[in-house]
Amino acid sequence: MKGKPLVSIVSAGLSKFGKLEGLYAREIFAEAAKEAFDRCPKLDPKKDIQALFVGHMGESYEHQGHTGATMADWAGLLHVPATRTEAACASSGAALRAAIYAVLSSLADVVMVGGVEKMTHRSTAEVTEYLAMASDYPFEQWHGITFPGLFALMATAHMHKYGTTEKQLAAVAVKNHYHGSLNPKSHMQKEITLENALSSRVIAWPLKLYDCSLITDGASCLILTKPELAKKYTDTPVHIIGSGQASDTIGMYERESFTSLTAARLAAKKAYEMADAKPEDIDVAEVHDCFTIAEIIAYEDLGFCKPGEGGQLVEKGETKLGGRLPVNTSGGLKAKGHPVGATGTGQAYEIFLQLTGQADKRQVKSAEIGLTHNVGGSGATATIHIYRRG
Amino acid sequence: MKGKPLVSIVSAGLSKFGKLEGLYAREIFAEAAKEAFDRCPKLDPKKDIQALFVGHMGESYEHQGHTGATMADWAGLLHVPATRTEAACASSGAALRAAIYAVLSSLADVVMVGGVEKMTHRSTAEVTEYLAMASDYPFEQWHGITFPGLFALMATAHMHKYGTTEKQLAAVAVKNHYHGSLNPKSHMQKEITLENALSSRVIAWPLKLYDCSLITDGASCLILTKPELAKKYTDTPVHIIGSGQASDTIGMYERESFTSLTAARLAAKKAYEMADAKPEDIDVAEVHDCFTIAEIIAYEDLGFCKPGEGGQLVEKGETKLGGRLPVNTSGGLKAKGHPVGATGTGQAYEIFLQLTGQADKRQVKSAEIGLTHNVGGSGATATIHIYRRG
Repeated sequence: MKGKPLVSIVSAGLSKFGKLEGLYAREIFAEAAKEAFDRCPKLDPKKDIQALFVGHMGESYEHQGHTGATMADWAGLLHVPATRTEAACASSGAALRAAIYAVLSSLADVVMVGGVEKMTHRSTAEVTEYLAMASDYPFEQWHGITFPGLFALMATAHMHKYGTTEKQLAAVAVKNHYHGSLNPKSHMQKEITLENALSSRVIAWPLKLYDCSLITDGASCLILTKPELAKKYTDTPVHIIGSGQASDTIGMYERESFTSLTAARLAAKKAYEMADAKPEDIDVAEVHDCFTIAEIIAYEDLGFCKPGEGGQLVEKGETKLGGRLPVNTSGGLKAKGHPVGATGTGQAYEIFLQLTGQADKRQVKSAEIGLTHNVGGSGATATIHIYRRG
Repeated sequence: MKGKPLVSIVSAGLSKFGKLEGLYAREIFAEAAKEAFDRCPKLDPKKDIQALFVGHMGESYEHQGHTGATMADWAGLLHVPATRTEAACASSGAALRAAIYAVLSSLADVVMVGGVEKMTHRSTAEVTEYLAMASDYPFEQWHGITFPGLFALMATAHMHKYGTTEKQLAAVAVKNHYHGSLNPKSHMQKEITLENALSSRVIAWPLKLYDCSLITDGASCLILTKPELAKKYTDTPVHIIGSGQASDTIGMYERESFTSLTAARLAAKKAYEMADAKPEDIDVAEVHDCFTIAEIIAYEDLGFCKPGEGGQLVEKGETKLGGRLPVNTSGGLKAKGHPVGATGTGQAYEIFLQLTGQADKRQVKSAEIGLTHNVGGSGATATIHIYRRG
């Protein structure tokens, strides 16, 4: 049995992901919280939960900061210490890390951690601008480059160095849309063909429309406690056995390589060491496919294959349901959607379902060990967590 | 001797507070970090520091989010796990709480925590709008009320219920400007008279210009470690012996009272209990005087006097240097300035100086126990910390 439990997940919740019209972020978060509470009847939220961490990326969307306290109130946790964390698209991965610290500190036995974003009421131009705040202002934003452009630089570098093809990028999209078609909470629940993906309009070459993740509304949350208290709340906890976080330069112009994310590699090393696990021990993973190239680089940074072989891995179907190591069974950011603040703990939600046998049509048989890989911006933040069935 | 040390502060840094033209937030943070490193030559930052938490309120000022990773890089901590926390004006109070969790978790032995804001390059109208994001959008911002208006509601309620006077509000300003005149890092270093304060123009009655804190650029930071490791880094650590955080409704319209902040009272109760201390044990305090009324309410919420007697406490000079319990010896948000994200750990910096006898002209004699009170927005977040000389 791998890895000593650090903390245990005793419940989890996820709102519907999609275009949720007429709702504020706080209402969407309350939906995720309700699922987590309903799933864990032995928990008395108001009495038991001693801290809340909320990943939330952008105060511009709703002209609303101070998200921690707001979500506490709307989740029925008025007066609980509540803090928003922000690390761009890794905001709730960072919240998860902060929540793990809190449980291990013994100042809080039961902690709620989640994330939320409401984006679809804004125009694509506005969203693009708000997301760009996660990149460097003086040397990136100011010159007009946005995230599709930054990831296109990674894609062209990867193609140049390793011969990765547009077809391999498209294969990520086809796989994740297939997975998304099996997930009733996914933003897009339709399969696409390789032809659909390859013929979609170019956003920033070689990235086309279907290489990009979705602008989505949604929220996610987990309830964490100490391993020795987990059985008080559930018979089927999921233990977190490894946690790694690392940072990098915010500007890509300062990095040595565009074909790998140093922060992700460093965070993965820490998480694997802590979990006493190797890449080949992972049964199911959710990785940060904000663009298709990001999933291919994730395979390589996580050691699922050698550097440069990520494109072949997906092309051979090894990361599809039924393959050797299914990745993004939820549909990923690509099809389930990417409400940025909600993504990190949303990945953990999927792993929680998988390791407790609740993933229905997308269940990975006998999954014991799972991994989540959550990246902020173009890679200045990465958080990796490893999970084991309790 | 009061309270068991939770964690120890082994160093601290503060940039100059003021209008820092031509600098980005990252450069200002680097200045604070440099002071903390210079003050602690036994620390090898890159090797020893295992996590960074940065309080930062607004991505709008510099069109820049992802502040944790950015500050890590500019402080010379590239690749260190780095997370921004946001809880409005209590952003770095919340960061301090998160950092305490991290040290107590044993996943990180030495942690840097700080905060930063760059505000003065924006117009007053822009700053007012960005700050307003810490209040409720649907029921406060949307109707046009901004922070001076919200705190004016508290002031009028306090005047109505307790007979607090405009002169007593002004006395807070006069005291804090006097303290600020003794602090070379203060934004404003000039004394004012009661007459100056009372005759300044009305912003939101009864609050006048001199009842309002300053729009300021600045950064602050602390280095924390476990108490048993503190002597490795310094002969004069300051121990944190109590920590409390609580939340409240973001909208003031949902609160039962406008004359007290429930979150501050709850956080204070926790901090006092943990520190095994009472209000009369406190020798020096930094409280959140975003408006003069807020300092008067803070006295009452912290038990420095009975409810309704805050105005008299300041009028009698009891909270002035030389008085029974000097409050805001740094000059406070009122005169030192209020670069919002930097304020919480900036308060802790002043207490660190006071408890290690480094506060120069504003030194409180034989100060043993200190307290910081950091409030977010109109009180939806409060963090209280209690410190003891090591």
